[in-house]
Formats: sequence, structure tokens, C-alpha cells
Amino acid sequence: MKENIKQEFMEVVGKDRSLHRTEELSCYAYDAFVAEAMPDLVLFPKTTQEVSAIMKTASRYKVPVTGRGAGTSICGAPVPARHGVVVCFSKMDEIIEVNTRDRYVIVQPGVVNGDLQRALAPFGFFYPPDPGSMEVSTIGGNVAQNAGGLRCLKYGVTADYVLGMKVVLASGKAVRFGSRNVKDVTGYRISELFCGSEGTLGLMTEVTLKVVPLPETTRTLMVTFNHLDDTAKSVSDIIGAGIIPTAMELLDKMTMNAIEDSANLGLPRNAAGSLLIEVDGVKEACDREIEKIIQKVRDNHAADIQVAETKPEQDRLWTARRSAYGVFAKLAPDIVTEDVTVPVSKVPEMIRNIEAIAEKHDLTMGVLAHAGDGNMHPLAPTDRTDKDHWRRVELAFKEIFEAAAALGGTLSGEHGIGIAKAPYLGLVMDKDSIEFMSVIKKAVDPDNLLNPGKFV
Amino acid sequence: MKENIKQEFMEVVGKDRSLHRTEELSCYAYDAFVAEAMPDLVLFPKTTQEVSAIMKTASRYKVPVTGRGAGTSICGAPVPARHGVVVCFSKMDEIIEVNTRDRYVIVQPGVVNGDLQRALAPFGFFYPPDPGSMEVSTIGGNVAQNAGGLRCLKYGVTADYVLGMKVVLASGKAVRFGSRNVKDVTGYRISELFCGSEGTLGLMTEVTLKVVPLPETTRTLMVTFNHLDDTAKSVSDIIGAGIIPTAMELLDKMTMNAIEDSANLGLPRNAAGSLLIEVDGVKEACDREIEKIIQKVRDNHAADIQVAETKPEQDRLWTARRSAYGVFAKLAPDIVTEDVTVPVSKVPEMIRNIEAIAEKHDLTMGVLAHAGDGNMHPLAPTDRTDKDHWRRVELAFKEIFEAAAALGGTLSGEHGIGIAKAPYLGLVMDKDSIEFMSVIKKAVDPDNLLNPGKFV
Repeated sequence: MKENIKQEFMEVVGKDRSLHRTEELSCYAYDAFVAEAMPDLVLFPKTTQEVSAIMKTASRYKVPVTGRGAGTSICGAPVPARHGVVVCFSKMDEIIEVNTRDRYVIVQPGVVNGDLQRALAPFGFFYPPDPGSMEVSTIGGNVAQNAGGLRCLKYGVTADYVLGMKVVLASGKAVRFGSRNVKDVTGYRISELFCGSEGTLGLMTEVTLKVVPLPETTRTLMVTFNHLDDTAKSVSDIIGAGIIPTAMELLDKMTMNAIEDSANLGLPRNAAGSLLIEVDGVKEACDREIEKIIQKVRDNHAADIQVAETKPEQDRLWTARRSAYGVFAKLAPDIVTEDVTVPVSKVPEMIRNIEAIAEKHDLTMGVLAHAGDGNMHPLAPTDRTDKDHWRRVELAFKEIFEAAAALGGTLSGEHGIGIAKAPYLGLVMDKDSIEFMSVIKKAVDPDNLLNPGKFV
Repeated sequence: MKENIKQEFMEVVGKDRSLHRTEELSCYAYDAFVAEAMPDLVLFPKTTQEVSAIMKTASRYKVPVTGRGAGTSICGAPVPARHGVVVCFSKMDEIIEVNTRDRYVIVQPGVVNGDLQRALAPFGFFYPPDPGSMEVSTIGGNVAQNAGGLRCLKYGVTADYVLGMKVVLASGKAVRFGSRNVKDVTGYRISELFCGSEGTLGLMTEVTLKVVPLPETTRTLMVTFNHLDDTAKSVSDIIGAGIIPTAMELLDKMTMNAIEDSANLGLPRNAAGSLLIEVDGVKEACDREIEKIIQKVRDNHAADIQVAETKPEQDRLWTARRSAYGVFAKLAPDIVTEDVTVPVSKVPEMIRNIEAIAEKHDLTMGVLAHAGDGNMHPLAPTDRTDKDHWRRVELAFKEIFEAAAALGGTLSGEHGIGIAKAPYLGLVMDKDSIEFMSVIKKAVDPDNLLNPGKFV
């Protein structure tokens, strides 16, 4: 980028909110995926007006602009693949309005998900989407990726909570979509279109989110099974009985053993898999639902059932699930986490596919699954500098994507496409559907300035 | 339309599934709103291939095409404003797959909402969106309008249940968007964009919908209040207590009296308004929630509380709500129902605004509100042939839209924009936001063939 253009960009936000030295820029060249690409400039705007001025400058000089929250994406979404300017929203972190009476909040995109939760708790409310990164990741990033989390089964994903937003378009114009009304069918659902668009359609500078009251109680149990098929059948039977737990988390045998090696929680080493189930609501309902769940998992040959009677017991059960990622991350310098989703009944078949693929390529792979919605995270510890191992990981994931597609599944349930899965889009979308996305992208961003080099 | 073009269209579906005589066409010139426009031809396709062939022909001769379900829209959405071909989906009414294990159904667009409910009930499942028209209206129409209903407060609107669809685009190409996975962030949320797009982006020929298990129990109570503000405060307090009822329906004084005049249900004539509240879930939860609700409405000075202990009592309470529309419809030859939405806390102020506007224009107006989500239906009995009365109704509704916008509300919560509210879009969207919708519309349908003359 020419020096005079750089200067013009930097004048928008001032020198103290601009980064241009290589050693600083390199921090913004990657996210939690493996791809890297250097930005020419990183800017930290504080207002919509500044974002608008940045975008107008970018439009004038045809400079690519990539929005960035906390950089926790694991698909390369905020990596500036075509270089140019990274607009980092960390200085736009104000909670503008909390209105629990009308059940909405208005936030700037740089607000950290966990901070929003803490701001809502005193009102007895919460914001349901809870990606694993929630203590670090920002609402802007969550919306751009349409983040999920552990509570999705009952509460849905980010898009289910986005009521409206202010967006700076490719032209630099700032516009509003949606409203603060929980029910609104006035015109196209443009806010929804922005959810998961990974910064390719505009830069959000304000988001209005629906919030919901905190449940009175949560109850947790962990069930182990000797046969994988019994886990999926249990999931279907529980939901079929009219119970929508907040979470039904499946750990496969490999994962349970890896956790046990590291944390010694007393998990059975021979079980085929376990389900960690949580329900929430009024106390009487939770008790009754736990009873029904126990009945259903017994009908499906549960090997062992542990019901948490106290908060510490609840925490102990969750420790297994929460530590899984860390346990695998310790096994090797790098870790690749994928995010395929299949219809719930296909989860056991998909786990067997993953096991077979891992064996074929001589890899260690564990599987965490949000089993209630079929969203599966195969985890592969690896070492990027080990070319052969890395090649086998890439091959294995390609085969995992193909296997998911063959089961009527999809490439991503909650992590997004970004750079990581763009090459595989054709597995689950036909040429004309992909073309339709391009038609919209081209109409909205004719010079391809907004996060270019991604899935669209 | 030239005879040879007509012939070409009719050859696609055959003569027995084409209408071209004026007396037949006139049935397809209107919906449940007041606007009328004659189609040149009505076609009843049975397959995606036929819809595709119709659209290819339309594209070749630049003929407008307007999709139609059951025509129950009350905003003029399926009225062929620019004439041309009406594609009526009533012969595409097959339920293609019911899969309660994986919680989805695949249907053709002409399936009637009520028929889908009946197909699901034996499996212990249901499809939550329940517009008032559900025994007549089709899934295709429900999706095109993003229909709501009485259960929205807890269960959300149509868009919350659309997982994927097959669509015939303006070019005649058939494409698929979304999937059958309840969690999917693979590419833009195009299916979501089609929800509420009123047939302006493509013609749906297949829809995949999420379905959910039937609740074990429902419980109902009706509460009357002497002050309107107490109704809104009750709604906020109930939700703030962690209870999301399936429905919280408000009837204003005028409506309660009109119902009482007609049906003699024993509703108090002096109450300012009433709330009909329903909860569902496991029995113990419902009991506890009803207790908590009673506490909250007592705290808010409830004048009278009736709890239905039996199914017939439940039905009796619902009769009031259900008969409201019919009662008003009997007062005059025509009835106009509007659909503004305001933040929940503004519902009483909005009701007072409506009362003042009705008085100013010397009109009888009642208000039904889905109070839990601020979605309000002012009802005005009128006579279209009485020019003066009609003019006053139009003026009054214009002022109602302005009043809703001033309260941070919006034009439509669940009925859509269509012809009825297109002129008022500027009240709640700025010029650039409206322009953004046009950019997408033009990119996707450059010749403006799909339902032209509507809000975009």
C-alpha cells in the first residue's frame, strides 16, 4: 500500500489507534486457524463515522478491508487474505442500552460476549449464544460467524437473537436494518443475511440483540453407553418425549480416555461414548425432566448414570467436557477442530466414519458433539511443521467433509467457512446456489473490498 | 398478453391446470386486503420442473409472475399488481417427508398449515407457527410472508423454522438453499432472506421445516385490569420472572365489549383490558408457572383472574380471543386489520394512541395485541363503497403507522408489507436501507419479473 494512502487511512482514527509496523501487523495476520496473511494497516475506530470514513477511503483506492473482533475464529474468517486494512473493533466495546423490560440490548461490535453476560446478570437476564470463546470473543465476531455454543439445542444460535444492526456498506454509507422489535416483518431480513456473512457484506458498528430471562434452575447428568447407537437413540427419544435440554454433549471413547489420562475424573475407559445432559427452567420441571431422561437412557441401555445433586457435582461433570479441547491441544503443537453437522440420527455413523478415517491416515482424533443438533467437532492434534502429518490431517478432514455431505450433513454448524472450508463448499451446495451468493455479494460490494478471498 | 405467449405458458402445465377466462381469473385478482389487479393467466404447476419452465417462459417474454398460496394475505402480497401470470401452488400440496427423529419435515409449498399439524400429531410433534389463517393458508404463503401466530412469543415465527428450500429463480433455474440440519452456517443464510420476501426473489417449490415435540400440558388463564399500564407491566414482570408463556393476548375495552355484545361470555364491560395467558410444558412446570403468573398479575392490580381448570374452560377463555375478528367483521361489510409492532413497554401508550386516532376520525376501532411481543392488531370495520368512511380509515391507519414508528415500533409484526404498507416503508427505514433491498432485488431479478409492484 502506498504511503500516502496509508497516511490518509491513519488520519481517520489518528496515529494512536493505527498500527503499521511489521511486528505489530503480524499479530493481525492470523486467527485460531492455520492460515496467515499480513495486513498493510490495522485501524481501531471508535465510532460509526470513523468506520464510514475508513470505508470511503478504501472504496476510493480499492483497498480490501477485513473486520476483526478478538480473532478467535477457527476458520480463517478474519485473516486478511488479500491484505489491505484490518478494522479491529476492540475499541468499540460499549454496551449502549440494556432494556430488559423490552428484552433487548444495543451493543457496539467489540463488546465481549462474557462482559455482556455479566452486564445482564444483575437484571436476571442473559444472552443465550455461548461459544467456547465467549470470555474472549466479541459480539461483532459472533454475529459475523453466526456463533453457536453449548446451549444452542434449546436456545438457538446467534442469528436467533439479532434484531437489528447498523452497518457500514462498501460505499462507506452507514445504514440500519431491522429494529428493536422482537417481531418484525418489515422488508427483507437483511440483518439475518449479515449473520454468518463473515464480514463480506459490510462492517457492523452496532447490534441490537434479544435477551431472555435467566432460568431458575439447571440440572445436569452424565450417562455412559457401551454402544454408540444408543447415544443417538437416547437423544431422539429424549427430544421425542417433549424435552429440549439446553445441552446434550457427546464425548467419544477416544476423547473420554484422553481426558481420563490427563484429568483422572473417573470416566469409564471402556464406554463407547457419554452424553452430558443439562436441562433448565423452573425447579419442578427440571426434576421431572431429569426423571424422564433417566427413563429414556435406561431404555437405551445406559451403562452408567451420574446425576449432579449439587453445584460442585455439576461443575465436576462439566469439567470433562470443558477440558476436552485443552487435553487434545496438549498432545501436539497444533490442533485442528472441525465442525461438520449431520442429522441427529446419523451421529453414530458419522463418529464411526471419523474413527475409520483417522485410522486410515494413522491419526489420533477425538470427537466432541453437540449431539442434540448433530453438530460434531472432530479434533486432530497435529504439528504444522511436520509436512507429512499435516498432509494426512488435511486429507482426513477432506474425507470427513465428504462423509458428512454424503449423510445429508453440512460443512459447518457454528464455526463458519472462512478460508478453511471454502474449497469444500461444492460438496454441500450446487454451482447455481454458490453463484446466487456471488450475485448478492457482487451487487452489494462490486469491487470486492469486504473481506475478499473468502467463501464468496 | 398475446395469445401465442398465453398458449406457450399453458402448454407447460396443460389446459386442465390453466385458467384464462375472465370470470375465473377474477378469483385470483385479490387476497384478504382491499387491492385488486387482474392476472392474464393462472397456472397450477405440480412439479419444480413445471415452475422452472413457467419462469423460463416468463423470462423470455418479460412477463410478471406472482406466486400464490391460499390468498389469505391481508396486505395484498399475492395480488398481481402488474398483471401477468399467477402461479398458484395449490396442486403442489404433498408432504414429502416426515422425520421426527431428526426433527424436520419436507413439504411442497401448497401444503396447508393445518394439514401439516395433523400429519405431525400422531408422531407427538407439531410445527409451531400458527397464523390465524392456519386452516386455510399454505406453508409457501406462510414462508413468503414470514407468518407469525399466537404461539410466537415462546416459539418464534416461520423464519425460525425454515431450514432449507428449493427455489426457482427469475432465470428459471432451480436451486437449493440451506439443508435439513438444524444448525448450519455454510454460506449466506439465503433461506432466511426468502422468508418474508413476499415472492419477490424467487418461487419456492419445496421447503424443509424444523418441527418440535408437542408439549405435555397447556394451561390457560384470563386476567382483566382496570388500567392499561398494568397489562404491560404484568407482561414484563411475568417474562422477567423467567416465564415465557406461549401466548399473552391482550383485548382492549372496545374489543371486549364488542365480543360481549355478540357472544355474551360474561366479560367485564368496564375493564380497561384483559390478558389471555397460556403456558405449556411438563405439568409441574405449568402449575408452578401459573402460580407465579397469578402472583405477578395480583402485584399489578388484576381486577379479575379466571384460571381454566378443564379443557372446556380453556376453550371458553379462548373463544373470546378467537371470536374477536369475526365480531368486528360482522359490524360492517369490510374490515381492515393492521399489524404494527412496538416495544412491549409501549403497548399501553400505543393503545391510547389508537383510541385517540379512532376518536379523531370518528371510527370504531378495536385492538387485539400479541402483548408478549408488542405485536398489535388494530381492527377497523368499514365499508369500501362509503368513500368518506374509507378515506377516514386510510387516514387513521397512516397516523397509526406514524405513531408506532415514533415509539420505536415497526409497520408489521407478522402480516407483511405487500401493497398495503409499501407507501409507509420510509417511516421505519431510511432511504439507504430501502435502496439496499433494491440492490439485492435488482441483482437477483434484473427484469423485475417476480411479484413486481410491491415493497421493493
